[in-house]
Amino acid sequence: MRVTIGDFLLTRLKDIGITEVIGVPGDFNLNLIEQIDETDDLRFVGTCNELNASYAADGYARSRGASALLTTYGVGELSALNGIAGSAAEHVPVISIAGAPPLFATEGRYDLHHTMADGNFRNMLDSIGEFTAAAVRITPMNAVEEIDRALHTCLREKRPVHVQLPSDISHLTIDAPETAFDPALPASDPERLESALERILELFRAAHRPVILADLDADRHGFVPLLQEFAEKTGTPYAHLSSGKGLLDEQSPLFLGVYNGRGSAPEVREAVETSDFLVTTTPRFIEANSGAFTHNLPAGATIDVGDQHVSIHGEHYVGITVLELLQELVERVDTGPAATASTAPATASTAPAETPDWEVLPDAPLSQERIWPRFARFFRTDDVVITEAGTSTIGLGPHPLPSGVKYINSSIWGSIGFTLPALLGSQLAAPERRHLLFIGDGSFQLTAQELSTILREDLAPVIVLVNNRGYTIERLILGMNSAYNDIAAWNYGQLPAVFRPDTTMVSYSASTEGELERALDDIEKSPHGAFLEIHLDPEDAPAGLKSFGPMTAEFDYGPRGPRNP
Amino acid sequence: MRVTIGDFLLTRLKDIGITEVIGVPGDFNLNLIEQIDETDDLRFVGTCNELNASYAADGYARSRGASALLTTYGVGELSALNGIAGSAAEHVPVISIAGAPPLFATEGRYDLHHTMADGNFRNMLDSIGEFTAAAVRITPMNAVEEIDRALHTCLREKRPVHVQLPSDISHLTIDAPETAFDPALPASDPERLESALERILELFRAAHRPVILADLDADRHGFVPLLQEFAEKTGTPYAHLSSGKGLLDEQSPLFLGVYNGRGSAPEVREAVETSDFLVTTTPRFIEANSGAFTHNLPAGATIDVGDQHVSIHGEHYVGITVLELLQELVERVDTGPAATASTAPATASTAPAETPDWEVLPDAPLSQERIWPRFARFFRTDDVVITEAGTSTIGLGPHPLPSGVKYINSSIWGSIGFTLPALLGSQLAAPERRHLLFIGDGSFQLTAQELSTILREDLAPVIVLVNNRGYTIERLILGMNSAYNDIAAWNYGQLPAVFRPDTTMVSYSASTEGELERALDDIEKSPHGAFLEIHLDPEDAPAGLKSFGPMTAEFDYGPRGPRNP
Repeated sequence: MRVTIGDFLLTRLKDIGITEVIGVPGDFNLNLIEQIDETDDLRFVGTCNELNASYAADGYARSRGASALLTTYGVGELSALNGIAGSAAEHVPVISIAGAPPLFATEGRYDLHHTMADGNFRNMLDSIGEFTAAAVRITPMNAVEEIDRALHTCLREKRPVHVQLPSDISHLTIDAPETAFDPALPASDPERLESALERILELFRAAHRPVILADLDADRHGFVPLLQEFAEKTGTPYAHLSSGKGLLDEQSPLFLGVYNGRGSAPEVREAVETSDFLVTTTPRFIEANSGAFTHNLPAGATIDVGDQHVSIHGEHYVGITVLELLQELVERVDTGPAATASTAPATASTAPAETPDWEVLPDAPLSQERIWPRFARFFRTDDVVITEAGTSTIGLGPHPLPSGVKYINSSIWGSIGFTLPALLGSQLAAPERRHLLFIGDGSFQLTAQELSTILREDLAPVIVLVNNRGYTIERLILGMNSAYNDIAAWNYGQLPAVFRPDTTMVSYSASTEGELERALDDIEKSPHGAFLEIHLDPEDAPAGLKSFGPMTAEFDYGPRGPRNP
Repeated sequence: MRVTIGDFLLTRLKDIGITEVIGVPGDFNLNLIEQIDETDDLRFVGTCNELNASYAADGYARSRGASALLTTYGVGELSALNGIAGSAAEHVPVISIAGAPPLFATEGRYDLHHTMADGNFRNMLDSIGEFTAAAVRITPMNAVEEIDRALHTCLREKRPVHVQLPSDISHLTIDAPETAFDPALPASDPERLESALERILELFRAAHRPVILADLDADRHGFVPLLQEFAEKTGTPYAHLSSGKGLLDEQSPLFLGVYNGRGSAPEVREAVETSDFLVTTTPRFIEANSGAFTHNLPAGATIDVGDQHVSIHGEHYVGITVLELLQELVERVDTGPAATASTAPATASTAPAETPDWEVLPDAPLSQERIWPRFARFFRTDDVVITEAGTSTIGLGPHPLPSGVKYINSSIWGSIGFTLPALLGSQLAAPERRHLLFIGDGSFQLTAQELSTILREDLAPVIVLVNNRGYTIERLILGMNSAYNDIAAWNYGQLPAVFRPDTTMVSYSASTEGELERALDDIEKSPHGAFLEIHLDPEDAPAGLKSFGPMTAEFDYGPRGPRNP
């Protein structure tokens, strides 16, 4: 089949379920955008800048399974790099495409705009390639092979890939396969699969205290429904790292809570650390999700499932497609609680118990202690809840989400400003779901203009702006009253009407619990988007942040370094 | 002298004239910001995000000679990378500092937030190092040597350098030199200097048609005053590349105009291309400043002065500090026009003639053809004029600036959105000068939030927002009426009051020449900043852009690619 290189790439994107390409126009990509415009069921969504586009693409991929980012050479792709690196850190499959200078000029080492004007056309790929699973410049000779390789790599490894498409080749035709792109992983080596399965089943039958501990890779590799099914079929209790929040049903009696090393609730810590059958999903322990590296998993009792391996008590089984293994496992495992399981329901539901019935104190100023359980009660099944790094993520962390809520945050990369464009991307990918964003004022200012794209796209999210007049997470680490943690005091509520004069988004402001209740009542009934600014004291912080702050200062600044008084 | 590593670095910054460090707080740099707060005559200026900080640092360095950017590891430094790369492309000396994870965690390959959580602590330096003249992680052992090396390299090569400072070492003390940082370049090899000088003087005495052709390196290496003096002493006429605009006095009768290959005025082209003594300053010809690579300099008659060499008719003289050479040259060259110079005043002043007396047509809609000569007349000696990539740069290009105006744009890198934060940086560096910015609406949306920092810092620039409802430069290249070149229609004029409710900045809007005149009258008299939105037709473009657009499409998209109808 003869197709243009551009159309081949775009068809491949559609094959994997992408219907929007998110980016910013530039002269080296305009012709590919023309090809997008001519493609049915695919459209270009322009954002205000490329970093925001990369964040949006990350959000899109989390809700759709993959996404496409389009930038232009040099200025565009480098602006997007922090977002691309974030997708790498968070294991999110983003296909980053940059329109590149024409191939003749690249091969001829021309001095061009958007370059160092020194004939070097490797530096962008090399720089970006530090953070992608593949980074390649397409030519007519390699197009079919490299585009398919990039897509397979992206989907298999759940990492971004970067593809530069020279501007003078996207309208050239090539011979391309007739068949749709096949994302299937290779089937397992049967002996290895069977050996691993038998060993796991044997260990499970002998186990007394099985536990599942989920981290984010469980989501990325599609393990979550099978783990949930395994837990329910066998009565195996489960916990998550804070970076795995919202994956397994937090309303189930099997839910233990958050595992965070010595920062865990005692019963969660005991269940995880003394488990004799602990299923993990390639957990990554960083400062913030390990109680400052006090995690202590039972290495001799751990079964770790990764994207291409199962490790059983430290013995690595490779050649296994883990989804196959989990499917078989769920099918073959005995129903009912493990013979003598002793961990479960006693310790379950401790977390839900933390959410007391909400009694409104109408004149009470809003406080970090009370807003997060309140918001947790505002969520509905199937909502997408997005929390920004800082008080929102830390504040909501301990509060269980309703079943079926999709939860998005950036727990490893933690780039502030990520979530507003990520909201745009996720809602483009899943427009049928209600979206709620919780973002601090400091974070909001980094990427604020993307609210205009949310409005232009007629999306109607609920955006809760936590205005505590600066970088409260930084204050708790260092500089509680320092001016450098202050930010400019914007009139945030006017922004929806500035960015879209005919907007239907409604702005609310609340400083007291009574005002918050009235706003939430109104939002609950309204079909329109909401921009709810809530005012909190700059020094008020969720309990988790009050311990995280000094711990971080201790870790970061060494014995001679400064501390908050 | 025992000092802390942080204080040593900060003292070095002060030694080279830096009084503001521009950046965004993050946990790995808060302790260095504390040290800034404790340093006399040095302060931290926070911006809304790191890309904007990097643009501001670029603008600061252009007006102050060097600048310091402060970000945090990973998320911050990568967000700034497009700006850092722009400084590399534009030859701007920015000292980029990133607070990095503590050294013990780096050496121990800990999994941390703001990393890939894989123990790799080389990837940021390697990625950023593609675009910097030095990229180094400081330790107590290397601090004195590497900090001084980075600063020398930055100032000598006029390129950004990147320094990672681990958060646990900036309060440790080291032995540091008592003496201030010495930015002096090594003295020339006397024989090479004398040989080059004699050869140049000999060639000049024999020359009939000497011309100077300036490009931006003349500014970066401090050659401009000496070149101007040489021209005036000898009556040598001069031209500039569009990337060298505003360096040499555009009001002098010696000023020929803009050299742009076949796109030049015929007399400029002839003067440059048939010169028998052409002084160049390491010109870099890209598409946009070479009439699509139709430049044709007389290689056998060219004397090129670079930062560390003089090339005479292709023969390279190295070991020369070129400032020494130029000083000697100005001193020793004979006064008066070169013996039989035949180029000069006849062709001079053609450009000024393009600016007719301005007759206001009060009801006429604003047009690209008429606004740029009008604004050129609005400028005063000592203004700083900043133009964004797109219609502003191309529109103002042919119009001579008053003597003494400093002109800032990004002619090689061309990253849209650069100029608003660059305005912030330049005005922080040179607060005594009036600043005027011309920026399109598309560009403005990329970095719009930095207006809030301009207002918070009590700066009072004149910002002219050219609202032509989208990316007009892209329209002229491809997609004249395509939706992808549209952008959201913001209510721009409300932004100053949103970003600072008590702002004194005055918003104006003009669609006709009469409205523009009234606004300019008011601005001229006001001590306050001005935000002037002017409305132009999306398809209206300066003459230069009307030819640049189709030329770019031809260059970019190849014979099979699309074109505007």
